[in-house]
Amino acid sequence: MDYRIEKDTLGEMQVPADKYWGAQTQRSKQNFPIGGEKMPAEVIRAFAILKKSAAKANSGLGLLDKQKADAIGYAADQVLDGKLDDHFPLVVWQTGSGTQSNMNVNEVIAYVGTEWLKERGSDTTLHPNDDVNKSQSSNDTYPTAMHIAFVLKLENHVLPAVKKLKQTMHEKVEAFQDVVKIGRTHLQDATPLTLGQEISGWHRMLEKSETMISESLSYVRDLAIGGTAVGTGLNAHPDFSEAVSKAISDETGKPFKSAPNKFHALTSHDETVHVHGALKGLAADLMKIANDVRWLASGPRSGIGEITIPANEPGSSIMPGKVNPTQTEAVTMAATQVMGNDAAIGFAASQGNFELNVFKPVIAYNFLQSCQLLADSMLSFDERCAKGIEPNYEQIEKYLRDSLMLVTALNPHIGYENAAKIAKKAFADNSTLKEAAVELELLTEEEFEKYVNPKEMTYPK
Amino acid sequence: MDYRIEKDTLGEMQVPADKYWGAQTQRSKQNFPIGGEKMPAEVIRAFAILKKSAAKANSGLGLLDKQKADAIGYAADQVLDGKLDDHFPLVVWQTGSGTQSNMNVNEVIAYVGTEWLKERGSDTTLHPNDDVNKSQSSNDTYPTAMHIAFVLKLENHVLPAVKKLKQTMHEKVEAFQDVVKIGRTHLQDATPLTLGQEISGWHRMLEKSETMISESLSYVRDLAIGGTAVGTGLNAHPDFSEAVSKAISDETGKPFKSAPNKFHALTSHDETVHVHGALKGLAADLMKIANDVRWLASGPRSGIGEITIPANEPGSSIMPGKVNPTQTEAVTMAATQVMGNDAAIGFAASQGNFELNVFKPVIAYNFLQSCQLLADSMLSFDERCAKGIEPNYEQIEKYLRDSLMLVTALNPHIGYENAAKIAKKAFADNSTLKEAAVELELLTEEEFEKYVNPKEMTYPK
Amino acid sequence: MDYRIEKDTLGEMQVPADKYWGAQTQRSKQNFPIGGEKMPAEVIRAFAILKKSAAKANSGLGLLDKQKADAIGYAADQVLDGKLDDHFPLVVWQTGSGTQSNMNVNEVIAYVGTEWLKERGSDTTLHPNDDVNKSQSSNDTYPTAMHIAFVLKLENHVLPAVKKLKQTMHEKVEAFQDVVKIGRTHLQDATPLTLGQEISGWHRMLEKSETMISESLSYVRDLAIGGTAVGTGLNAHPDFSEAVSKAISDETGKPFKSAPNKFHALTSHDETVHVHGALKGLAADLMKIANDVRWLASGPRSGIGEITIPANEPGSSIMPGKVNPTQTEAVTMAATQVMGNDAAIGFAASQGNFELNVFKPVIAYNFLQSCQLLADSMLSFDERCAKGIEPNYEQIEKYLRDSLMLVTALNPHIGYENAAKIAKKAFADNSTLKEAAVELELLTEEEFEKYVNPKEMTYPK
Amino acid sequence: MDYRIEKDTLGEMQVPADKYWGAQTQRSKQNFPIGGEKMPAEVIRAFAILKKSAAKANSGLGLLDKQKADAIGYAADQVLDGKLDDHFPLVVWQTGSGTQSNMNVNEVIAYVGTEWLKERGSDTTLHPNDDVNKSQSSNDTYPTAMHIAFVLKLENHVLPAVKKLKQTMHEKVEAFQDVVKIGRTHLQDATPLTLGQEISGWHRMLEKSETMISESLSYVRDLAIGGTAVGTGLNAHPDFSEAVSKAISDETGKPFKSAPNKFHALTSHDETVHVHGALKGLAADLMKIANDVRWLASGPRSGIGEITIPANEPGSSIMPGKVNPTQTEAVTMAATQVMGNDAAIGFAASQGNFELNVFKPVIAYNFLQSCQLLADSMLSFDERCAKGIEPNYEQIEKYLRDSLMLVTALNPHIGYENAAKIAKKAFADNSTLKEAAVELELLTEEEFEKYVNPKEMTYPK
Repeated sequence: MDYRIEKDTLGEMQVPADKYWGAQTQRSKQNFPIGGEKMPAEVIRAFAILKKSAAKANSGLGLLDKQKADAIGYAADQVLDGKLDDHFPLVVWQTGSGTQSNMNVNEVIAYVGTEWLKERGSDTTLHPNDDVNKSQSSNDTYPTAMHIAFVLKLENHVLPAVKKLKQTMHEKVEAFQDVVKIGRTHLQDATPLTLGQEISGWHRMLEKSETMISESLSYVRDLAIGGTAVGTGLNAHPDFSEAVSKAISDETGKPFKSAPNKFHALTSHDETVHVHGALKGLAADLMKIANDVRWLASGPRSGIGEITIPANEPGSSIMPGKVNPTQTEAVTMAATQVMGNDAAIGFAASQGNFELNVFKPVIAYNFLQSCQLLADSMLSFDERCAKGIEPNYEQIEKYLRDSLMLVTALNPHIGYENAAKIAKKAFADNSTLKEAAVELELLTEEEFEKYVNPKEMTYPK
Repeated sequence: MDYRIEKDTLGEMQVPADKYWGAQTQRSKQNFPIGGEKMPAEVIRAFAILKKSAAKANSGLGLLDKQKADAIGYAADQVLDGKLDDHFPLVVWQTGSGTQSNMNVNEVIAYVGTEWLKERGSDTTLHPNDDVNKSQSSNDTYPTAMHIAFVLKLENHVLPAVKKLKQTMHEKVEAFQDVVKIGRTHLQDATPLTLGQEISGWHRMLEKSETMISESLSYVRDLAIGGTAVGTGLNAHPDFSEAVSKAISDETGKPFKSAPNKFHALTSHDETVHVHGALKGLAADLMKIANDVRWLASGPRSGIGEITIPANEPGSSIMPGKVNPTQTEAVTMAATQVMGNDAAIGFAASQGNFELNVFKPVIAYNFLQSCQLLADSMLSFDERCAKGIEPNYEQIEKYLRDSLMLVTALNPHIGYENAAKIAKKAFADNSTLKEAAVELELLTEEEFEKYVNPKEMTYPK
Repeated sequence: MDYRIEKDTLGEMQVPADKYWGAQTQRSKQNFPIGGEKMPAEVIRAFAILKKSAAKANSGLGLLDKQKADAIGYAADQVLDGKLDDHFPLVVWQTGSGTQSNMNVNEVIAYVGTEWLKERGSDTTLHPNDDVNKSQSSNDTYPTAMHIAFVLKLENHVLPAVKKLKQTMHEKVEAFQDVVKIGRTHLQDATPLTLGQEISGWHRMLEKSETMISESLSYVRDLAIGGTAVGTGLNAHPDFSEAVSKAISDETGKPFKSAPNKFHALTSHDETVHVHGALKGLAADLMKIANDVRWLASGPRSGIGEITIPANEPGSSIMPGKVNPTQTEAVTMAATQVMGNDAAIGFAASQGNFELNVFKPVIAYNFLQSCQLLADSMLSFDERCAKGIEPNYEQIEKYLRDSLMLVTALNPHIGYENAAKIAKKAFADNSTLKEAAVELELLTEEEFEKYVNPKEMTYPK
Repeated sequence: MDYRIEKDTLGEMQVPADKYWGAQTQRSKQNFPIGGEKMPAEVIRAFAILKKSAAKANSGLGLLDKQKADAIGYAADQVLDGKLDDHFPLVVWQTGSGTQSNMNVNEVIAYVGTEWLKERGSDTTLHPNDDVNKSQSSNDTYPTAMHIAFVLKLENHVLPAVKKLKQTMHEKVEAFQDVVKIGRTHLQDATPLTLGQEISGWHRMLEKSETMISESLSYVRDLAIGGTAVGTGLNAHPDFSEAVSKAISDETGKPFKSAPNKFHALTSHDETVHVHGALKGLAADLMKIANDVRWLASGPRSGIGEITIPANEPGSSIMPGKVNPTQTEAVTMAATQVMGNDAAIGFAASQGNFELNVFKPVIAYNFLQSCQLLADSMLSFDERCAKGIEPNYEQIEKYLRDSLMLVTALNPHIGYENAAKIAKKAFADNSTLKEAAVELELLTEEEFEKYVNPKEMTYPK
């Protein structure tokens, strides 16, 4: 293997010749042979946005040479284009401030930027700390990169996926608004509703989650940048924070702003816990929706079988012809993971001390995984399952006809206790409600038919 | 023991003669000898508000006799006044829709209301189902009572406690804004800040949590009432839901409204998961604040000892004279409980099926416990600890003087690497930074004194 | 209110005249107005066992007057008999070492023991610290009391409840061993099994949990007593720990022993996390069993309906005649609570510092609640639901007859792919497997009947 | 891109020409574009062990041609050697029974085995279902592979890492057994102990966790194999399960056995929850150990500073010369992840229905991640931090000298209350205990020196 020598304040390190990182990255790579979970790509790219914006701000404040700022911007763009992915080898399980990933970005940008300057005939070199990290500390850049990454992930991936699935549900609500079916509470037969109404509950879950995520997201727009090492902003210009936040907003097209209190911004992740609470609400809803879908589609002959869903693959390695609701299973497993991630995030957020919380990478990792899994599984479920939901009219009709809980419509006419007598008698005799009602002389056949109309029971007036 | 006989649709039951509940309550009491956790009083009182409001609405819609509505209102007020607490014996671990607590309320109100009518010379009797529960189902009343209880608990107990502790922190921020001290990141000495700045981070945590709770609370104002058994509103007048919601708003002085989709309102608790996420964010912050307080107060002779806190009780049964930071311990244990409750709530919220989620009482129990513990422990901590926080100036001064990280102020003047050399030399020689700087010939004594000024490092310009 | 004056090292306190506690208890009562959760009675009684045993040990080692030891023993027995329950007013949310509950016990025992001595004509008085707490510290007594309480609770309440439910399941396994029914995987029809076999899975869950709890319980038999303040055993005789452990074993009839390392015993609760992991395994199993029961009993006309369970109470306040699987709902809510408690316990156990973990009361509270809820809900479910499970033969037979997955028995004869063709054709044509098989000319009618025999498919040879 | 056509019972699929998987794998790859988390390599290799063992068993029972069994064995060995890693592209978020990964293994082994047969001049082809999956179902193979993977991971990675760190702690216990230092409880100064004793608590945590993991591990040795589709063992020879379990034991050199009840084995993961409870206990202990290490090493000038640990990398991108306890941070983040994973596993384990739990891949993923992170972080922490722990004698001595809690040694001589007076006076006067004792005339100077001997207080006799 071919190496070059790089240095940091602890001494020399051998770095693979074809890699752009420096001594500190190399040191971390060697010091943390733990797991295989890389620092999420979303964080690395958010760092690139931040470094470019910081260079602009420093340059605008007259603190950084324009040429250096351009070089940093060029290198950052290369990171954003995904061209330097091989140069970010560090894992999540490193220092809890993410210092080493900040330095990884500083080093790679300094290297690539310096090369770019060289190509342009300049002999200026970028220093990872003094130039790329100018006016910054890991302690304010890492949480800034987290927030940028979270907002982009939520707005570009999670919310669009919610919207898509919501749209499909909306179509189903419309399509099945007149399909009257039995309701079920406590898994026991209850009063009727339409399939469209049932699905409207799912639709509302998505709509409500969408709003809750969007609104709580606003707290994540506050950026720590400008706090530097402990929140005081030492070594940063007083206008730096605002200038960087503006540059980031310009770069991403999303509103971000300088956090009003940097001591909070370095030590608390309450807003992350809060938004992830909205994601957990969504996960709970998705668990419910996916469970409903698979139960309604259960069968084909010994289940509930009120709907059919697409058959996407052979379901069993031993039972020929079996088809399983696999998309719903992926969704429920993803939702389960989000529950676990939520526990990890809450725990991590509570463990700050003094001027820093050093559980940042584990928070970023769990948060972004939740986003990815929720969004991906919603999109997959939407495309390969939800869109294909169709009523099984025959089965729906059969259950409705047999239902005893249609008796509820009689409460206002004969009272709860008399109605109960009818239901119990019909159940005991294995007869219909009408037969039982007439036999008990509580109603005439005509009255029964007038009062008990499943369709009207679904949209009472 | 003296009994009377009560009946429900399953038959007769013996009920203690001095208790106002009926057959269904008695049945539940006997059928669920599980744990000792009573259905929270907040839920029972919310039910009283609801029953009174429903009676008004039914009466206003011409569906319930005015006299009956008054009787229900009277009985509900008795519940609200806490006069009937002994008549609600049921536990959390009952049917998952809370049906039996709904019936408990229906039965007690019917009994007390009927007595009131009797006293007024009327021979009208209230029927628990046909009158008190008119136009309602457990499936819509229980979640309505949950939401009423949650909003009242958050607005009347949790948020005022946050505000109080926040106010104390605000005073400390002001009082200590000039107390320059060492900062600490990774538990290692870092650049200085003032004690006021450090506490301003805690203040911002409380302020941010307050906003996050307040805003996410708005989703809980949506009421399920009007959905009845499965969400269709069967047996309720189409205007009932709006009328009840308005009456509840009037009764409580808080805005509530009819949930736009009742199928959601019976099956999803996403908004509860979401608000509890804000409470978990607060718990994480409180864990951090309480930890900081006890670490800063650690000692008296072998700890950090930068602040002193009130000595409230002898700390040890074996070590004479020991005083411990007990209020912080109560806070951190309460925060721990909230973390556990959050896991239970998320789980429960995910387990709905079809037209109902039958994990409602366990959600209500955990949510209200979180509120109680957070609010009580904040108030106690505020009164008995936070207010008494005072700087230990001698210790603060000593640490500041010795600190090596003041070297950071030199970065813009001599670069990160030279500054590092100074810090390392001072550490190795057990000397001061100034001595090391001069010896390394990187700065003159005058330059050092000009650049390194702890006070100015806390409010950089 | 009538008061008397009590003193501790911080000064005087007013104590209600009819209460036996002293100044420190009073101080704690006033200083922690948080929640309403009392220190669990199981912990208080375990403390009584411990204090009695410590007095015996101190006396045996010649360190405590025999008469004093007897007085302590007498008072402790009063606590154990439940006669002094009103004298333990403190809540869980106090100092994290449980010091104040240790002192509460010390104070009450000193008071009652001194009274007893007085009645016997002695003017000896017991000192809470110097006599009742002799050779002890809260730091070793509280974790000792926790372990005593946990072992007694698990062995006297949880394990007997598991055994009872297991026995019922055993009876059902025997009773239904020949009831052939359809199996279901992924909620989709699968190959057949007997109802007895299905229930044998539940039986095995209980049996396995029983063993896992019993075995992991052994780690909880290690007692911290003898470690005193920080684990060194300062102020305790070197033989004290063994002597107390033996006395506790004698008193309870359960094996306990002195923990081999007291530094661990004061700071780690790994064994509690571990045993609670077994309880969580049981909770997961109970969730599964209860879900199966309610799904199998779903209906009566629009669900799976393969079994019937007892109707214990009216199920709905609006739907007359409805009966719900309420016992299963109590079980699943209890299981949910255990999941939350497990998160709280793990968190708390991780938060020790140096010579002490100060999250002990919250651990004790959650652990004992889990035990209570699991045991109570199993007993209630056993008595009021499991024992009454009966097959619905008609429905079981119908599903079995219609099943397509009987085709699996053909794999060894015609291969997976041909078998799949038969199943798909039967499904598409809504025909029987036999018809499809013959039509596809893959088998003759005779062959089909020979190979496909549901009963034989359940006990393949 | 170059493709070939493969078929399954749902039809034809295009598969990349250079990949050995078949139609079902391809279908899953396309149907589950969710996240990036691959089915863990440990599961794939466990499958290879299982397939080889099943082939042996089938062959031994006369159900599979010897040549086919050899071909399967050859292909499985290729998987075990890691030569086929590129041919297992599926993610965790697929069908919840892991069917598609079972089929992936079946397909790849069938392909590679058939090639091998071809090379040997045979025209026999292996069928993924009829040969490689013979006598098996995903429903019994996936949980079998999980258990094999868990046992190997725990015994080959986790337990050796525990042992290593334990050994280092053992050495530190010995080395520092005479270094007397101040103890701390509630973060407040307490009675003394030796540094060796303090570390012995950590040692015992590792030792106890080791035993708890090892013992609870035994439950995971039960294998589901032989249950096939629903637990009855349909299409498997009655001796198959025993034969496969024996072959797996031979192959791995670890004891495995056929689970006594297959209905349990397909639906319950109680043993996994239980063992992971032991891992969570270990995580809680590691959190405590790592926290202690970083607090004891805090400083260098404004912290506790009783120990020094290795400086592995520059700690700050802005503060020159700063060195942070980064290895402890990686450990605590890993422990945090284990807490989250535990929540996910408990949830998943509770969600089985009827004859199957379809949350298996998410369980396997979380369990194996916990193992990896715990083991890796312990090894890294051991090598790069624990081994380098050294006492800072000067600081230790200073704290000890100043301590007020040495007063505790006086309890047996002058009683708790008098001792308290001394401590309080010394604190108030900022004097020594001896001075205060003499001034209060409670002890002579000689008595004080006789009773208060820090060294003797650490090993009381």
